[in-house]
Amino acid sequence: MTPYDDLMAFQRETEALSQVAGRLGWDQETMMPRGAAPQRAEEMAAMQSVLHARRVAPQVAEWLEKIDAATLDDVGRANLRHIRRDYDRASRVPAALAARIARVTSEAQGIWAEARANDDFASFAPTLTEVIALKREEGQALAAGGDVYDAMLQDYEPGTTGAEIEAMFGAMRPVMSDLRAAVREAEAPPRLTHSFDEPAQMKLTRQLARAFGYDMSHGRVDKAVHPFSSGSGLDVRITTRTNETDPFNCFYSTIHEVGHAAYEQGIDRAHLLTPVGQGVSMGVHESQSRIYENQIGRSRAFTGWLYGQMREAFGDFGVADAETFYRVVNRVHDGYIRTEADELQYNLHVLMRFDLERALVSHDLQVADLEAAWNDRFEADFGYRVDRASNGVLQDVHWSVGLLGYFPTYSLGNLYAGCLHEALRAAIPDLDVQLAQGDTSAATGWLREHVQSHGGVFEPREVIERATGQAPSEEPLLRYLTAKFSELYSL
Amino acid sequence: MTPYDDLMAFQRETEALSQVAGRLGWDQETMMPRGAAPQRAEEMAAMQSVLHARRVAPQVAEWLEKIDAATLDDVGRANLRHIRRDYDRASRVPAALAARIARVTSEAQGIWAEARANDDFASFAPTLTEVIALKREEGQALAAGGDVYDAMLQDYEPGTTGAEIEAMFGAMRPVMSDLRAAVREAEAPPRLTHSFDEPAQMKLTRQLARAFGYDMSHGRVDKAVHPFSSGSGLDVRITTRTNETDPFNCFYSTIHEVGHAAYEQGIDRAHLLTPVGQGVSMGVHESQSRIYENQIGRSRAFTGWLYGQMREAFGDFGVADAETFYRVVNRVHDGYIRTEADELQYNLHVLMRFDLERALVSHDLQVADLEAAWNDRFEADFGYRVDRASNGVLQDVHWSVGLLGYFPTYSLGNLYAGCLHEALRAAIPDLDVQLAQGDTSAATGWLREHVQSHGGVFEPREVIERATGQAPSEEPLLRYLTAKFSELYSL
Repeated sequence: MTPYDDLMAFQRETEALSQVAGRLGWDQETMMPRGAAPQRAEEMAAMQSVLHARRVAPQVAEWLEKIDAATLDDVGRANLRHIRRDYDRASRVPAALAARIARVTSEAQGIWAEARANDDFASFAPTLTEVIALKREEGQALAAGGDVYDAMLQDYEPGTTGAEIEAMFGAMRPVMSDLRAAVREAEAPPRLTHSFDEPAQMKLTRQLARAFGYDMSHGRVDKAVHPFSSGSGLDVRITTRTNETDPFNCFYSTIHEVGHAAYEQGIDRAHLLTPVGQGVSMGVHESQSRIYENQIGRSRAFTGWLYGQMREAFGDFGVADAETFYRVVNRVHDGYIRTEADELQYNLHVLMRFDLERALVSHDLQVADLEAAWNDRFEADFGYRVDRASNGVLQDVHWSVGLLGYFPTYSLGNLYAGCLHEALRAAIPDLDVQLAQGDTSAATGWLREHVQSHGGVFEPREVIERATGQAPSEEPLLRYLTAKFSELYSL
Repeated sequence: MTPYDDLMAFQRETEALSQVAGRLGWDQETMMPRGAAPQRAEEMAAMQSVLHARRVAPQVAEWLEKIDAATLDDVGRANLRHIRRDYDRASRVPAALAARIARVTSEAQGIWAEARANDDFASFAPTLTEVIALKREEGQALAAGGDVYDAMLQDYEPGTTGAEIEAMFGAMRPVMSDLRAAVREAEAPPRLTHSFDEPAQMKLTRQLARAFGYDMSHGRVDKAVHPFSSGSGLDVRITTRTNETDPFNCFYSTIHEVGHAAYEQGIDRAHLLTPVGQGVSMGVHESQSRIYENQIGRSRAFTGWLYGQMREAFGDFGVADAETFYRVVNRVHDGYIRTEADELQYNLHVLMRFDLERALVSHDLQVADLEAAWNDRFEADFGYRVDRASNGVLQDVHWSVGLLGYFPTYSLGNLYAGCLHEALRAAIPDLDVQLAQGDTSAATGWLREHVQSHGGVFEPREVIERATGQAPSEEPLLRYLTAKFSELYSL
């Protein structure tokens, strides 16, 4: 046994325990009896305590010291990179600070939920101030003199910087604003008006999951309040939700989560329960969920097939033909809420959060001024004013639980999806012929080969570059959105 | 913080982790996608490795040394007793032997399953020989010079001995054999002949669970191949199964598992996630499942109510009246399989396994002679010969996975249930009036107060003595069975 073998054996057990903790989370959202919550909190805390102890275990440092990276292959070096990054991160943050963040964010979530219910930002502001101060302290410990926000980003999108993101997002904003303004002046497609049986939605949603290559022998589909994907390797479960008047919520939540799950299911099995055996970053993860959901799932070709499936499942639901259906699916609509936004406007929500949270971290913006800053920026980008805090600054849970640096990965994912989509279309010119039959296998096969199978072997940016032959850029996404919505709205 | 506080804080985390491991087991039997099995094996092994390390942690020994038991109350002393017993057990067995047992029994289970499918005991015999040799070695390490089988018993029924069980079982055998012979000569009640819709069975089974006080806000009912109860404290889940032609399989599996679950749900909440926060032994556990299932669930009064519920759920199912239904439920039938045996014959199966496994452990019986010994004993007790190994010596998984000393707890449970039932009837003379209304609350309330709430505070034998005012004995069970089946079969 070399020191690398020892480290990997230890790590394999850690990864297995981490999967167990993830499964507990899945259970909590799907199966757990409601009265079990207090006990579950102790079970989760015990698992986290075990995992933390392993992350900062002295023998990990010893092994890391002894290993000669030059003797390893690409995969070995990638594993080492992940382990070293986790170890450094865990050991740089003082235990007392980590414990304090855990406690404060756990309480903050409840305070946020109550503030949101009361549309009362002021009652949440002191808590948010504390969360940001603590996360800033953590960021300083991690940054070791470098940029604090950049250090925060590494937890979600290793290798990227705030400046890099700012450049890309800055280029996206005016194009999307203009496109959005033009769309809003054009004639809108109709909406769905019928009611859709929920068991039939679940049946069709499972069919959609399979159509997108979701492997039911290594996963399952259940209902949850907020859809999510959970687990890596041989056990990757997804959830969705149903709403009688909005079956697209169910179907596109499923396709989105199948994108995440396909990434985890599609990683080379040789990497099972190793550090590279998971999706490499939140951004690349989101690129998979978004390209499944939007570039493929909301394409004219695929919605043509979906229209037929919905007719079979629900009969005549008031949409006359496939072309109208395509327009209904891609309808651009006003709203305040990020998670309900359409493909065109979604990124405007994210760009705004990125700028605001970066300003909060850098002290350029104070929490006391956050609500006003939010409302002004929203009005500037969307053309109407936020009517209440739950539709504005209080809508997302993220900041309350200390997620700073997470929001931009949503739009990075869209941006990566744009890059991958151009490369995919170039590689498979007749893709629409297959999508029109409900056959996504060529598309998902290409993504599996060029993105998913690698897991964490390459850094996020490198994944996109290797798959597309080019550095990530906002341009492909902007070309795609402009072409799609100009055509849809006859601009 | 006293050393006791430190120990208990550590132990609380261990108990939480043990609950997590249990929940993984539940998931495996109910929800897990089939392709996840290899990964799950690693997850379970990682959890067991964490739990083992905690059981033999040096700081536990240090705390145990420092604590002055005289300063503790009853509960504290009981917690200490459990922790010390676990620590001694875990540290007496050499790690290499424990690992070998884990590996061999894991393989043995597959070999047993194949041998059973082929009705070929010879192909399993070498493996069983190895399992018994390893478990004997473990037993010797645990016995420290004492009786090896007694040492094995401590894992399942602390405080009891083989000699004590032999005396009770020896007294049971002739009485049950005679009763059985008389019943077989009498006229048999009819059988069910209709078919019973499975969703309706599940609906009624949940109603039955609630009727027996199962708390759905701290549990849930799912289907599994082999019914079981899982978890302690605030999350105690049960499973059942359905069979279109045999709804009793579903209903009485549920009631049985509710008995186990009620024990765990009924433990004083002050003991949550502490060593005394679980059922004290397999025997006392089985006393709860059996008294729910048999003495209450198969009573004339309760089956009268159940008959009405089944008429409501299934319409006329070919049983004319409640009295006939009572006889159908309690029908004594020939068979080879322990788990399918009726209340009267079940213990004859267990007594036989107890004698055989004790002889195997003491070298009085060789594995090579086990099948013949089984078949001869079966013929002596049941009056007909085993037709094939899967109906005989290969029917149970227990020995293959190294469970030696476990079988007798099934009949100990029945014996304890007999004791508790006499005390319960004496305490609540009009119990049948309530049972006839489907109201088990007085019965389950008495059991909760006198047995369940104590968890592991008292030793198993003491639990029964405190509840009944008498030492455990086979006599109440024999009186109950003799009276019930003499009356049922007009002997």
